[in-house]
Amino acid sequence: MGKLPPKLIIAATTDADMRYAAGLSVPDPFILLDTGRKRVLLLSSLEYGRAKKVLGRGGKTATRYEVVLLDPYYEAIKKRLAARAARQGQRIRKGSVLALIAAAFLKQRRIRKVLMPARASAIHVEQLREEGIKVEVSAASLYPERAVKTATEIREIRKVRDATVKAMRRCITIIKAARTDEKGFLWHGKRRVTSELLRTEARHLLLEHGCEASELIISHGKQTAYPHDQGSGPIRAGEPVILDFFPRSMNSGYWFDMTRTTIKGKPSSAYRRLYAAVKEAQRAALAKVKAGVMTGTVHEAAAAVFRKRGYATTDEEGYIHSTGHGVGLEIHEAPSVHEGGTERLKAGMVVTVEPGLYYRKLGGVRLENTVLVTTTGYKDLTRMRL
Amino acid sequence: MGKLPPKLIIAATTDADMRYAAGLSVPDPFILLDTGRKRVLLLSSLEYGRAKKVLGRGGKTATRYEVVLLDPYYEAIKKRLAARAARQGQRIRKGSVLALIAAAFLKQRRIRKVLMPARASAIHVEQLREEGIKVEVSAASLYPERAVKTATEIREIRKVRDATVKAMRRCITIIKAARTDEKGFLWHGKRRVTSELLRTEARHLLLEHGCEASELIISHGKQTAYPHDQGSGPIRAGEPVILDFFPRSMNSGYWFDMTRTTIKGKPSSAYRRLYAAVKEAQRAALAKVKAGVMTGTVHEAAAAVFRKRGYATTDEEGYIHSTGHGVGLEIHEAPSVHEGGTERLKAGMVVTVEPGLYYRKLGGVRLENTVLVTTTGYKDLTRMRL
Repeated sequence: MGKLPPKLIIAATTDADMRYAAGLSVPDPFILLDTGRKRVLLLSSLEYGRAKKVLGRGGKTATRYEVVLLDPYYEAIKKRLAARAARQGQRIRKGSVLALIAAAFLKQRRIRKVLMPARASAIHVEQLREEGIKVEVSAASLYPERAVKTATEIREIRKVRDATVKAMRRCITIIKAARTDEKGFLWHGKRRVTSELLRTEARHLLLEHGCEASELIISHGKQTAYPHDQGSGPIRAGEPVILDFFPRSMNSGYWFDMTRTTIKGKPSSAYRRLYAAVKEAQRAALAKVKAGVMTGTVHEAAAAVFRKRGYATTDEEGYIHSTGHGVGLEIHEAPSVHEGGTERLKAGMVVTVEPGLYYRKLGGVRLENTVLVTTTGYKDLTRMRL
Repeated sequence: MGKLPPKLIIAATTDADMRYAAGLSVPDPFILLDTGRKRVLLLSSLEYGRAKKVLGRGGKTATRYEVVLLDPYYEAIKKRLAARAARQGQRIRKGSVLALIAAAFLKQRRIRKVLMPARASAIHVEQLREEGIKVEVSAASLYPERAVKTATEIREIRKVRDATVKAMRRCITIIKAARTDEKGFLWHGKRRVTSELLRTEARHLLLEHGCEASELIISHGKQTAYPHDQGSGPIRAGEPVILDFFPRSMNSGYWFDMTRTTIKGKPSSAYRRLYAAVKEAQRAALAKVKAGVMTGTVHEAAAAVFRKRGYATTDEEGYIHSTGHGVGLEIHEAPSVHEGGTERLKAGMVVTVEPGLYYRKLGGVRLENTVLVTTTGYKDLTRMRL
């Protein structure tokens, strides 16, 4: 394989690769060129000064940054396009001509070929090609090194963990402390305990810690048999509740992921066995986690427990998802911990271990911890016992 | 211009065009084909049943939907790719092969050419072309009709308005009711009034109404001279505060947008004049809003007030942004109300009218209402007087 061409990203830092490469947060789309030796950020005057200050500090990082003012390139292009835009009654906005600005900049630096991420905007790729730039669209991640976290990244993930655990504790406490009425419904003060009530409670707590969570799974009863069900309605004593929380820090952009399954009152003995099987499967999978181990080995440890205990898997029931995934600037990122996976874990990877069992009649159980892979095993970041 | 080819979108309903075309909310990416006569949704078994139920009701809408189960197409492709994936230690995920599934489906329906949105993933366009599908990437919006809102859409926007106004009132009440210490800082109970405190208060209130707002501008003092400054730190009496709130309903996906400028205590006479100019400019611009009027006419009405009052505009100071934009499933969407704009307003459009003035020494003022365009003028959706 030859040398890769320079990487080009046109996006806001809501895009995880852009956030990673840029080293700071920028709400509007901009241009980043990564030549391998340095990263050049083309920013408008609104962001230029701040970026210079933040990235100019240096010392802390080996990455070399160059911050370039985008406005002169924009002015040059504006003149070229003004006549056409006026004819069409349109407005030239910086956002819509970013690809043209990037093309002008690349030509100036004598770069004729770039690699762009899989999720680059199709129109940007088209416009760059029309301007004579060769664009290769990468099927794989532009920054596979994102899978191994730095100490700073782990610190940020731990902060989200703190918020997530607090929200989880709060919800489970509400369930456990609830009054039960004659129909079996749970009450928190004067309000019925519903998925919606718990979701709002969790979100308020997360917000106090600077985290947002537009989705939070709080499913109960029959809903728990469907891992994608977000959950809704009033919760009863004796039925399982799955709480799968995955908030994101609005400040750092990092995520955390954890799941607990709980119940108010006594579970049936069949459901108790189901829970015990998932608990054992999680322990078995965790026991395999260590740098150098293949992801498929971790999955297989969980699957073996289910087979041994007689829990069958079909298309729709049983162990119908994989064991885990990386967590960082995306909620689902590399590595994927799944059946037959041959990728080897590395020290510094942050992965979930989340076996589960789902049956239409019994309901579901899922237990999910997020752990840091080490050379000797793992450090459980989740720190919450149930 | 010839007949447009069928439209193809591969995205989750976080994408506004997809949300609009699909008629329901789906968190994971899927495939939508719009032939003009009907819209075909290719959904996995996780979503298939629900979509059938929601879209099958019919009657309410003239749009014809067809819901197709994606899984058989996935299974067929999985077999084709399994050997290759195994060699590379990768996993075939439905998400990564959606373009291949779309290609197989299009071939089966004898469709050889499609139109995809500007922000389609570049990799999807590449994969479809490799499969022999002709792909045209649309530079313009795939659904320009989104600019004119239906009664249902207006109802959803009004709901977000209710939440936004409540959050705005709460923040302004805190500022106005604050105690001032000897240094001029504001206090709310035992806490100093900061941008951060107000932002958190607003977010909690928004959350209670099912709305989220990862960004909320609450800038003060010198910060107000920069319209993009999010704002931070403690607020003092006598300095201006700009509150620009743009939350989104987590349920419906619709946004609302409004801005108020306030102050605790007495503004200087120069600042008072600045405020009065913006107020007059907003009135003048609003007086022009009516179906059939060009967007440039609305902008010019505000700009003329500033010129008449002697407020000059340079690259960095004065009236440095446009007058407004559409609001709907995106916070910034068509039409754009800007200098020289020749697009004509239509009844049913929902647009912001938000003139502002910004000077380094004086600070800034911005006033923003979101209004519904009618044949006789407009209906102010904002319903909040200051």
